[in-house]
Amino acid sequence: MLNVGVIGSSGYTGEKLIEILLGHPEVRITYVSRKNASAASIAEIFPKFKTRIDLVCGPTDVKSAIGKCDLAFLALPHTASMEIVPELLKAKIRVIDLSADYRLKDARSYELFYGVKHGDKKHIKDAVYGLPELYRNKIKDAQLIANPGCYPSCAILALAPAIALDLADLGSVIIDAKSGVTGAGKKLNEAMLFSEINEDCKAYKVNVHQHIPEINQVLSALASKKANVTFVPHLLPINQGMLETIYFSKRNSRKHSGGLIGAYKRFYKNEPFIRIKEKGQFPRIKDVCGTNFCDIGIYEEGDKAIIIAAIDNLMKGASASAVQNMNIMYGFSETEALL
Amino acid sequence: MLNVGVIGSSGYTGEKLIEILLGHPEVRITYVSRKNASAASIAEIFPKFKTRIDLVCGPTDVKSAIGKCDLAFLALPHTASMEIVPELLKAKIRVIDLSADYRLKDARSYELFYGVKHGDKKHIKDAVYGLPELYRNKIKDAQLIANPGCYPSCAILALAPAIALDLADLGSVIIDAKSGVTGAGKKLNEAMLFSEINEDCKAYKVNVHQHIPEINQVLSALASKKANVTFVPHLLPINQGMLETIYFSKRNSRKHSGGLIGAYKRFYKNEPFIRIKEKGQFPRIKDVCGTNFCDIGIYEEGDKAIIIAAIDNLMKGASASAVQNMNIMYGFSETEALL
Amino acid sequence: MLNVGVIGSSGYTGEKLIEILLGHPEVRITYVSRKNASAASIAEIFPKFKTRIDLVCGPTDVKSAIGKCDLAFLALPHTASMEIVPELLKAKIRVIDLSADYRLKDARSYELFYGVKHGDKKHIKDAVYGLPELYRNKIKDAQLIANPGCYPSCAILALAPAIALDLADLGSVIIDAKSGVTGAGKKLNEAMLFSEINEDCKAYKVNVHQHIPEINQVLSALASKKANVTFVPHLLPINQGMLETIYFSKRNSRKHSGGLIGAYKRFYKNEPFIRIKEKGQFPRIKDVCGTNFCDIGIYEEGDKAIIIAAIDNLMKGASASAVQNMNIMYGFSETEALL
Amino acid sequence: MLNVGVIGSSGYTGEKLIEILLGHPEVRITYVSRKNASAASIAEIFPKFKTRIDLVCGPTDVKSAIGKCDLAFLALPHTASMEIVPELLKAKIRVIDLSADYRLKDARSYELFYGVKHGDKKHIKDAVYGLPELYRNKIKDAQLIANPGCYPSCAILALAPAIALDLADLGSVIIDAKSGVTGAGKKLNEAMLFSEINEDCKAYKVNVHQHIPEINQVLSALASKKANVTFVPHLLPINQGMLETIYFSKRNSRKHSGGLIGAYKRFYKNEPFIRIKEKGQFPRIKDVCGTNFCDIGIYEEGDKAIIIAAIDNLMKGASASAVQNMNIMYGFSETEALL
Repeated sequence: MLNVGVIGSSGYTGEKLIEILLGHPEVRITYVSRKNASAASIAEIFPKFKTRIDLVCGPTDVKSAIGKCDLAFLALPHTASMEIVPELLKAKIRVIDLSADYRLKDARSYELFYGVKHGDKKHIKDAVYGLPELYRNKIKDAQLIANPGCYPSCAILALAPAIALDLADLGSVIIDAKSGVTGAGKKLNEAMLFSEINEDCKAYKVNVHQHIPEINQVLSALASKKANVTFVPHLLPINQGMLETIYFSKRNSRKHSGGLIGAYKRFYKNEPFIRIKEKGQFPRIKDVCGTNFCDIGIYEEGDKAIIIAAIDNLMKGASASAVQNMNIMYGFSETEALL
Repeated sequence: MLNVGVIGSSGYTGEKLIEILLGHPEVRITYVSRKNASAASIAEIFPKFKTRIDLVCGPTDVKSAIGKCDLAFLALPHTASMEIVPELLKAKIRVIDLSADYRLKDARSYELFYGVKHGDKKHIKDAVYGLPELYRNKIKDAQLIANPGCYPSCAILALAPAIALDLADLGSVIIDAKSGVTGAGKKLNEAMLFSEINEDCKAYKVNVHQHIPEINQVLSALASKKANVTFVPHLLPINQGMLETIYFSKRNSRKHSGGLIGAYKRFYKNEPFIRIKEKGQFPRIKDVCGTNFCDIGIYEEGDKAIIIAAIDNLMKGASASAVQNMNIMYGFSETEALL
Repeated sequence: MLNVGVIGSSGYTGEKLIEILLGHPEVRITYVSRKNASAASIAEIFPKFKTRIDLVCGPTDVKSAIGKCDLAFLALPHTASMEIVPELLKAKIRVIDLSADYRLKDARSYELFYGVKHGDKKHIKDAVYGLPELYRNKIKDAQLIANPGCYPSCAILALAPAIALDLADLGSVIIDAKSGVTGAGKKLNEAMLFSEINEDCKAYKVNVHQHIPEINQVLSALASKKANVTFVPHLLPINQGMLETIYFSKRNSRKHSGGLIGAYKRFYKNEPFIRIKEKGQFPRIKDVCGTNFCDIGIYEEGDKAIIIAAIDNLMKGASASAVQNMNIMYGFSETEALL
Repeated sequence: MLNVGVIGSSGYTGEKLIEILLGHPEVRITYVSRKNASAASIAEIFPKFKTRIDLVCGPTDVKSAIGKCDLAFLALPHTASMEIVPELLKAKIRVIDLSADYRLKDARSYELFYGVKHGDKKHIKDAVYGLPELYRNKIKDAQLIANPGCYPSCAILALAPAIALDLADLGSVIIDAKSGVTGAGKKLNEAMLFSEINEDCKAYKVNVHQHIPEINQVLSALASKKANVTFVPHLLPINQGMLETIYFSKRNSRKHSGGLIGAYKRFYKNEPFIRIKEKGQFPRIKDVCGTNFCDIGIYEEGDKAIIIAAIDNLMKGASASAVQNMNIMYGFSETEALL
């Protein structure tokens, strides 16, 4: 049995991690913690877990975590992760960090988009970007996983085949993203009150969202040239789930038999969690909600391509993909606890 | 033109008051204010009102309000009203208070249920309980209206005929109430986040809600004996609207031809905002949402009676009933701006 | 491996059965069917199951089902089950029927409340009412399980201790029930359109719902006298989940130490899916949604008792409880695939 | 008093027309009808209108309508309007048609996108496209108004200044639209059930929606060259409201001081229902819901432009804009009953 800790277990991704890990036969949750709060049992914090887990959740104590875990999931807001990662790594604890702290290789970009100094630049280069479909081999041996953001997970999975195979005009990429509210975390913010979100839809952080450099970083690497996508996120009045409608101009389309759909199917042919829709079929959030799947539908006509992808922001966009990474790191079946 | 002020205009009831009053031909909003915040135009606070009203909303300044208004609506949390009512009354400003501060005639009951001292006991006795269907004549000449709470408005309208006509066993009354979230005001509270409310329903303040003494006070007066209703409120994942399902044992039912439905129709026969359903028909929130109506449906079988009533908690349960009171106080058509 | 069929797999309970059974290590789904429709793969009907199950779903063919299954789940509307149960039983197929067809021991009551003739009165007496918490021993050896309705599951679990221990005045029981829309099945009905349900709440079938005789039947048996509960169901604008707020007058309360909460805890002390809340705590739908749990909260003051219970109508109220019954019938761990 | 009829009053746009017209001081509803149904009072069809309007609504009888109205609103599905428009026009009844039947000047395009023959090609050329902000002068004297579709209303208002002033590369226009469910009308369709829409979001009719030729027709006229926009509509789990996020490459931007925002403000400077947001501000559905406003926010950076517009699909996208057209046609204040 692998001993795992969930550091930052009072938010949505922490809650979801506990839920998934409780169903994993090779894993035991041995440590939980949360910030800024007195100790309470997990069942007090989340009555839904009553009778299912019996652990006390107090303020994070890194030494205690080190004594109790082989692997630590960090379900923390940005900046909180980099405060404890160095100590965990030094103690040979493997870390899957769900925050943004180690995703961007360029610390200046991090500092620009997140508006804070980066306090652990040293470990940035060691972090492996935890998207299994692209980086499975590096994930296997990583000590530190930078688990992708939810918008980037969906966008990169939807664009990777087209970009990697040079089928898209990189400069033309427009991502119109729609997300459920848990994507923003459990924040006390008037804009997140039920009566503000319900019966509404709005764009926010129009083309300035902090996930943009993360998407550009991965697409640039795939394309071997600098990406600069247009990205507009919108808030949906739903709890979980994300849909991205992506527009680009096609390139080299004659080279690929079966069009984009054929190319995408070949690219992802061994992936257990990617499902490419047939022509004329498009994904919906409901079909992936509560799962680790990414469903992708494709429209193409002349030079126009439209890729529509759906994931559950808390699952493939956060906690389930973190567990998928753990499965890869420890040689468990990659779909364990996820199917 | 009547000059009116909306003191506390940044909450849901203040917003709704502005919306209704903008459509009232005999009224001009001349003063708005809010607590604890720097001055901003109403259009900045509520972009929906842009181009419709051009007033600056700063911290409440009672002297300024007195200089600008004939009538002040107080859309304030409890305790905030009683801090300014004495000064307003002294200056001969008529006041419609939407808070709970002047509803309970027994200050001890107020202090018990609201957990604070009452700071203006002197004016409690002068306040008229602003339910037009029961107290229209007193409202006409009132200086200070205690506008009813949303749960009590619905419960009292649903029970008044049965209690006043001695058709109900007062001790048997059970009120199972369901309310949209705006009933709780615009509070920064984790329990009110979209992701907490959406796809959920729960009871709260089970039989200890602060609206219980208000309901009991009015029913006791109607019955000329002490009421002690059972009351359980529930939170619905909707913005506006309230449904109450009320159970009681019948009394004296032979005396009334047409049963309860007949008795209710006669009781409310001249009321413009009360609609009694035919046998087998029951109200729904959607039919009253955005209106000042209270729809009432009645089931009776043997000794059992079930009364189901629906109102919009922000309209008949707060701001629209306040405007109805204003219409009565100033001799305007009672339905002006409300139909 | 147990071979199971899901007959009627295109509705909500069929879909949920497939989802749960796919995670059950001792079971293989070998037959699926649906009514009135041409054959299609499960993945075409439910894109969410693509890559997870590869079966063709055509019109029900009982002979084919008999050849392929040891156990058949019937996720059918009422009257459809009784048309095929005799043939299945004759072929020694064990049956878990999620319809109402075999729940009521009194065929006249069935015919009165469902408005149709009962076509298989012969097997009514053989059917075991599939509520494990009350009838686990009979379930073990049953050939035919009448799986309880969702409202009755919740109501009976919430009332059983009080009634069985004679702590409630049976004549005073009032059940105010609130359910998500999947409780009504996937029916093409204008009243079930999104725009009709959303932002609304209403009562329906006020005290005449067909689940009333089912509740009365079980409570009467527990009390050894005739029950006649008052029952008003309401429709909530949520997909899944049910909350019942139940009112009664207490009896014999001095006899039980720890009050109702103590009595309920003792009554259910070995039940893996019943959780009794501490004093002052009440359940919410969110905590049981997607689970087989029934959470119960209790208020008592003088003679008044209020029991609030929550289940997921598709899980503990239908498909998960059906799997719990299967686990009992075949000696699997009772919580397999359910925790 | 103007006598108006609402033909097709049982759908969402008919209901909304009645609601708005009941508040219009210069108008009297004298005729209502619906298809395929026996006669019933409006209050039976819509209990919300009980005590507010007393008319019987039976199957449409054109002669009766002609006898009772000066103006007929047709809130009908496409093809139903063109069956009765000729007779109405012949009788000198002015018509505001909310269906798609007279919007497209090219009947072949209509037949291609709507999949039916056009039965009244003769009157197509007489119809005035009822978008007041562009065609106010023609509307004034029109006998037949083709009231715009909801998606086109929003898209055209959001694009008109940029296209008319040659500030946009017409070939680059991409419209990502999100609409509440009432946009699709009150259809009995499994996909529109609450449990299908709630907690979901999906694209549909990807780049093949029947509103595309309508948008292209108007933009082509403004640009004096052929438009061919990319258009992907999405369904939001809300009742009312629409948001469109529109992407294009800028042209000639140096020519306009104040950038796009300045150009848009000047273009719409006298429009009572268009509100242009300041830089960095974007619209939300909630601010326009229940109103005739179109709120527009603009992002521009280098060559990239993003225009975000919000309307209420039933108001500015249908019934309120129809009333605005009526106000223009009869010389009423243009904002009567709409502000």
